Amino acid sequence: MQTDKDLAFQSKLYQRVAARISAAIESGALRPGDRLPSVRRLSQQHRVSVSTVLQAYAQLEAGGVLEARPQSGHYVRAPRALPEPRATRPPQETAPVSLSSLVAGIYSTCGYDEAAVGFGAAYTPFSLLPTRQLGRLFVAAVREAAHGGAEYDAPPGHLPLRQQIARRSLEWGSALSPEDFIITCGATEGLNLSLMAVARRGDTVAIESPTFFGILQMLEAHGLRALEIPTDSQDGMQLDALETGLKRYRVAAVLAVTNFSNPLGSCMPDANKEKLVGMLARREIPLIEDDVFGDLHHGPARPRVAKSFDRRGLVLSCGSFSKTLAHGYRVGWVAPGRFQDRVQLLKFSQTVATTTVPQRAIARFLEGGSYDRHLRTLRRKLAESMHRIGAGVAEHFPSGTRISQPKGGTVLWVELPRKVSALELHRRALAEGISIAPGPIFSARQRLSNFIRLSTAQEWNGRVEAALVRLGQLATELA
Amino acid sequence: MQTDKDLAFQSKLYQRVAARISAAIESGALRPGDRLPSVRRLSQQHRVSVSTVLQAYAQLEAGGVLEARPQSGHYVRAPRALPEPRATRPPQETAPVSLSSLVAGIYSTCGYDEAAVGFGAAYTPFSLLPTRQLGRLFVAAVREAAHGGAEYDAPPGHLPLRQQIARRSLEWGSALSPEDFIITCGATEGLNLSLMAVARRGDTVAIESPTFFGILQMLEAHGLRALEIPTDSQDGMQLDALETGLKRYRVAAVLAVTNFSNPLGSCMPDANKEKLVGMLARREIPLIEDDVFGDLHHGPARPRVAKSFDRRGLVLSCGSFSKTLAHGYRVGWVAPGRFQDRVQLLKFSQTVATTTVPQRAIARFLEGGSYDRHLRTLRRKLAESMHRIGAGVAEHFPSGTRISQPKGGTVLWVELPRKVSALELHRRALAEGISIAPGPIFSARQRLSNFIRLSTAQEWNGRVEAALVRLGQLATELA
Repeated sequence: MQTDKDLAFQSKLYQRVAARISAAIESGALRPGDRLPSVRRLSQQHRVSVSTVLQAYAQLEAGGVLEARPQSGHYVRAPRALPEPRATRPPQETAPVSLSSLVAGIYSTCGYDEAAVGFGAAYTPFSLLPTRQLGRLFVAAVREAAHGGAEYDAPPGHLPLRQQIARRSLEWGSALSPEDFIITCGATEGLNLSLMAVARRGDTVAIESPTFFGILQMLEAHGLRALEIPTDSQDGMQLDALETGLKRYRVAAVLAVTNFSNPLGSCMPDANKEKLVGMLARREIPLIEDDVFGDLHHGPARPRVAKSFDRRGLVLSCGSFSKTLAHGYRVGWVAPGRFQDRVQLLKFSQTVATTTVPQRAIARFLEGGSYDRHLRTLRRKLAESMHRIGAGVAEHFPSGTRISQPKGGTVLWVELPRKVSALELHRRALAEGISIAPGPIFSARQRLSNFIRLSTAQEWNGRVEAALVRLGQLATELA
Repeated sequence: MQTDKDLAFQSKLYQRVAARISAAIESGALRPGDRLPSVRRLSQQHRVSVSTVLQAYAQLEAGGVLEARPQSGHYVRAPRALPEPRATRPPQETAPVSLSSLVAGIYSTCGYDEAAVGFGAAYTPFSLLPTRQLGRLFVAAVREAAHGGAEYDAPPGHLPLRQQIARRSLEWGSALSPEDFIITCGATEGLNLSLMAVARRGDTVAIESPTFFGILQMLEAHGLRALEIPTDSQDGMQLDALETGLKRYRVAAVLAVTNFSNPLGSCMPDANKEKLVGMLARREIPLIEDDVFGDLHHGPARPRVAKSFDRRGLVLSCGSFSKTLAHGYRVGWVAPGRFQDRVQLLKFSQTVATTTVPQRAIARFLEGGSYDRHLRTLRRKLAESMHRIGAGVAEHFPSGTRISQPKGGTVLWVELPRKVSALELHRRALAEGISIAPGPIFSARQRLSNFIRLSTAQEWNGRVEAALVRLGQLATELA
């Protein structure tokens, strides 16, 4: 039983622990974005009870010094919490997309050069991927295939892989069967086949604003017009704005990155997904869903896919292993709903089949049962680097900067003071070996001139930090 | 010095040798399509001089019993030489393509089932491919890649592979550089990207009649109209007919399988290729060239590519390793001429990159220097099986049958008596485990109802022969 004296002593104790942590932050020993020791570990280190540490953390959290993140721990907050970027206000008119020459000049510098510090391309670094284990399975797959992998796995693709993906679909809130999937050359091919299946040149596709430049390039390649829908940096596509758009225009399809969108990082709440699927079903409009980041949630639960609310077969849901296992394997999928036959024929006509051996290697990896464990580690590391890079932006970027607060994925969307030209910042940074993705490539009309996307798909180290400091200086010079 | 008596004796000797060969054919010991022993070997076996054997062969050749094939030897002629198929007479009007449902019902049965005897799909049998050697190189490539192949080889693709293809382009009459090539997911992706680069939905593309159903499916996928040009079974697309078509219609591109076309087996003479390229250059019309069969010539010389006559960058030339090394690897290329930048952006937007490891494995295979030796063996075996299957058709198919006489490639085009329904023959044959490709899938208008394509990409054996005999019986029942 605790006495009043005990409580008085304890209250002093937790305050002393809190004061020590504050001092460490003051001195720079703990930096914004740093993770604090676990409660158990700190209680051992300081020889205090667990509840004392919890009280200390709670006090610092209340004071805005620390922040708690589910399943991850306590982190030093950025010195000033930046507001989130303002929603874009794209004109509510459809527009043809013509982005290629701009993107051509930029994507070639977006992270293929391993010498540069890459905030440009959102590829998961190899140090976080099980490349050795996959390599071994790759070799085993060559030996196990009847003809060493020289044979086709004709569409819909390798059955054991489709079985594994179907099993994983339970995690997404769906219960799809192997027959529901077609294996594709990455999610990119899945999205393209979906567009070809449901839209024709001159048709309009509603997309998020901002959206991934790769999606804009697809629309351009197929001669489709874009209707850019304002998107909330937390909740994704604004459904009331979409509703207005659907009333005004004949829209052939909606294409959305439902979970941890690129570049905004928004995650559409499951209730909104259900509403979206219903809205479109009433109008018989297909939804093309890009879920490549869904497995990279920071919180405990994986967000559902919109496909899980699909009762009419109108959702074509695409994903891949490019962010979580190996982008060079080029293995993704599409679950095309009622468009299954059409998409399968298109797959055959566009690339015939997906390379055999990588499909087999990934199937074996999933069968081995270590994918979930791998994902847990990967998520934790990606969350940590996102928080550190976010904190670095808060610390080093010019006043007036805003930044997204994604709950998953691998990108941060940064709104710079209006005067800053993202394209100029891109040029100056690149000259110093630092890549970023400038805002205009995320807009059909090449607007968003003072936004940049920072890839956080990397392991935090001194070199990354120095590059971020320098990027902040360059942005400040332009502000 | 030879005396008159020597000569008289010798003349009798060569006649005796010829008579023995005739008797062997008569008795069935030598069958139509069989290759005779080499001149040297026969001279040893029969203890006669080489010139005696040559005289015997010449006599039998003159009598229509044998035929000589360059670099291959002497073969037993079919008992009756069938005429070549009549040229198709497609209406000189453009037409939209709508073939998918028909092809869907057929391609799934076209040779994926290894249990069936497949005259359906034109895939080189694994027994003729260096699958073990490739498998070893595949494994080595995983180990050599910096990240086990998890990394992209971003477009235009793996440089050492492009270097090897550029070196091989000398064999095609070109002298292209590694920078001229973009690696694709098979020639199929190269053709699709080429179509996307030069034509838009509703445009017309001039194609051969008949043409590969995969090409028709591509036109359908991209919403392109077909202008089918009559094609000579020896010389390929009839240039005067094309000229007429170009005067009458606005044609966005011409797409032709220049060497050993599919299904006709025609090979456009180099002089015609030069003329074709010139004709199109004057009108600024791009030529999309499909050269997947070019390496599979029977004669001593590889036919040139039309690209070798391209002075204006208007030829987009596509090829692959699917027929000669491994179709399951999905590695091909396009040399897009002046459309290089556009095709490279399209490649990025459609599938991002081609799987890394197969590119590396094939590059190593080519660097190893055994590709030419492999091709020599492959060509000889494919030529032999084509001749045997051709002879079998002549022997067993109903009166009135006509057949193509290709000088390379892996397909025979068979014109059956008008009454025979190729689709019905397809159904009946399939019920007995024999696949064929019926004519209607090679026509934008699903005509050619009494034609079939027989794949000769297989090793001749008793099972293949029995299937051919049965196919002839089924065709006779329908005639």
